[in-house]
Amino acid sequence: MQEDHVSCTIAVDTMGSDKGPSEFVRGLIYAIEDLELDCHIILVGKKRLLERLLAVRPLKKNSASAVVTLHDAPEVIGMDEKPIQALKGKKNASMPQAVELLREGSADAVVSCGNTGALMAAGTLRLRPLEGIERPALATIIPTKKEPCVLIDVGANPESSPKHLVHNAVLGSHYASAALGIKKPRIGLLTIGTEDGKGTTRVNETHKWLKEIDGIIHYTGLIEGFQVFNGDVDVIVCDGFMGNILLKSSEALFSFIGNTIKEELVRNPKRMIGAALSKEAFRDMRTRLSPDQHAGAPLLGIKGNILKSHGSSNYIAIGNALRIARELVAHDMIDGIRADIVTVNTRIENL
Amino acid sequence: MQEDHVSCTIAVDTMGSDKGPSEFVRGLIYAIEDLELDCHIILVGKKRLLERLLAVRPLKKNSASAVVTLHDAPEVIGMDEKPIQALKGKKNASMPQAVELLREGSADAVVSCGNTGALMAAGTLRLRPLEGIERPALATIIPTKKEPCVLIDVGANPESSPKHLVHNAVLGSHYASAALGIKKPRIGLLTIGTEDGKGTTRVNETHKWLKEIDGIIHYTGLIEGFQVFNGDVDVIVCDGFMGNILLKSSEALFSFIGNTIKEELVRNPKRMIGAALSKEAFRDMRTRLSPDQHAGAPLLGIKGNILKSHGSSNYIAIGNALRIARELVAHDMIDGIRADIVTVNTRIENL
Repeated sequence: MQEDHVSCTIAVDTMGSDKGPSEFVRGLIYAIEDLELDCHIILVGKKRLLERLLAVRPLKKNSASAVVTLHDAPEVIGMDEKPIQALKGKKNASMPQAVELLREGSADAVVSCGNTGALMAAGTLRLRPLEGIERPALATIIPTKKEPCVLIDVGANPESSPKHLVHNAVLGSHYASAALGIKKPRIGLLTIGTEDGKGTTRVNETHKWLKEIDGIIHYTGLIEGFQVFNGDVDVIVCDGFMGNILLKSSEALFSFIGNTIKEELVRNPKRMIGAALSKEAFRDMRTRLSPDQHAGAPLLGIKGNILKSHGSSNYIAIGNALRIARELVAHDMIDGIRADIVTVNTRIENL
Repeated sequence: MQEDHVSCTIAVDTMGSDKGPSEFVRGLIYAIEDLELDCHIILVGKKRLLERLLAVRPLKKNSASAVVTLHDAPEVIGMDEKPIQALKGKKNASMPQAVELLREGSADAVVSCGNTGALMAAGTLRLRPLEGIERPALATIIPTKKEPCVLIDVGANPESSPKHLVHNAVLGSHYASAALGIKKPRIGLLTIGTEDGKGTTRVNETHKWLKEIDGIIHYTGLIEGFQVFNGDVDVIVCDGFMGNILLKSSEALFSFIGNTIKEELVRNPKRMIGAALSKEAFRDMRTRLSPDQHAGAPLLGIKGNILKSHGSSNYIAIGNALRIARELVAHDMIDGIRADIVTVNTRIENL
């Protein structure tokens, strides 16, 4: 999916993750050596620690198309700190420093596994929303029976108005194009009961507006809960309250089912032999459904590319977040969003 | 969980299900012979058809504590009919006839697999909500890592106010007591981020009110999406929009994961042998997580016990819905709800 060579600099907040900066360095090496990432990476964090980690496992010679530099940030924002206070009190922490590199134009994208609230606050307050956008949204990619699809919003804006939901559709469409390479993403609006008038007034209003802007995006209509994993749309639009609970409960159910199967498989020797013979099937099932390939939830609708990765991301997830960050830059996603939001706002204001 | 002998009559709408009335008759036999249901069952539907089905497989002699009678209802409301129109146009259909038996006091509970919208409309318009209740709610029981828990509302009231959500907590608490035998059900309110002020204004208001009525119910606080299947609460309270999508998407994910495992298990002979040896583990996993044991979503907050079972319910699910209907009658659930709603409304109106 990579375009021809683009100049691209990604600032990486290496300090926020549960697994520490060493996993970030592994992720960096994976991105450059395995995913052939060709860009400039600025590792933001405790410089001497990062130097030591890079010395232990230097990059292979054939990865010369990538350049890695370091940016010292002595402080760390913890996962449980209050976002606004943390940003005010720790200006030298790795996360605000990475966002600052983006703001001043020294980087084209930021990747962080840190405190979600602080990252959203930094993106919204320092970079600012794009013109015409009232509330940024977090998107993520979920597996389906067919191709993966974008779910937006997964928690940035829990109280979305119809206008916010229409904007989510535009943001999600651009993200699906850039991250998944889909030319004309099919957009579905999540509701209960697809008959006329069955959802909430907010959903019904949004549905009406989305039909009006079909053409700018490719709106295919309402979808219900039982269709979420069908893969019949490329973008599922909902508010941040719904999306966050849907995402978190699905992750929880996935691990609950996995654990229940494991318990049942060790109940007697026959089952244990069966499990041993079929264990690769479970590994492959996990790989197919795991979020690692599409890691990173971008905060969309702001003047810059910011990707949030799960706090517990492993090096594969981190490497893929870097890859996706580069796609967003290569696709000039932000310019595309900026133009469409102006058109959409004009159209819905005239309804 | 059955109390001492209670006189209990259940009217069963046998015509609405996807599998037809024969599955209902199987469910009836399962309930009486296996679950030892001791009550009067009125099968509502096409009388001659039901007579033929009962003649094919008569009840065993040791099931004398149950009595089965028939109530002729020549019409059927289809799954895709518009609720209000269907009820108006087909007064002799099995569903409105069953509800009528409940309304006039000839039955203590109704079980139906038919059109959900029509059943909710029949319950709300013919039986009417209990005093002080503005909007009835649908509850269901979901599996968790520990004991099953009640999820309420799963679709009756998509736009719930804080007062509706507080009522959902009271309704869910009584249902958990009656259907699951929990003396003091722990109530959790579903939200995103349990820190103060992180959810929506609606959730924050509800949280405040639920703390005020702790004592009438046992409110344990906010829970997030990742905790849904933990089993740390006995009742999860949310609005009908959230609950419906959560329930439907979870069912979809369960079948999606199951199908993905199946695909992986037949990829090569080694895996197929493994799958054959461990197939009982999957059967047991399905039994543990299947909704059949706790089938039936009651429409709560109305003046009568109405249980909606899934349109595709098998005989085990139908039998269990009958068992649960009997529990609700034995526990005088409606009287309990009636009393608590009055107390709760007085308390929250004085806040």
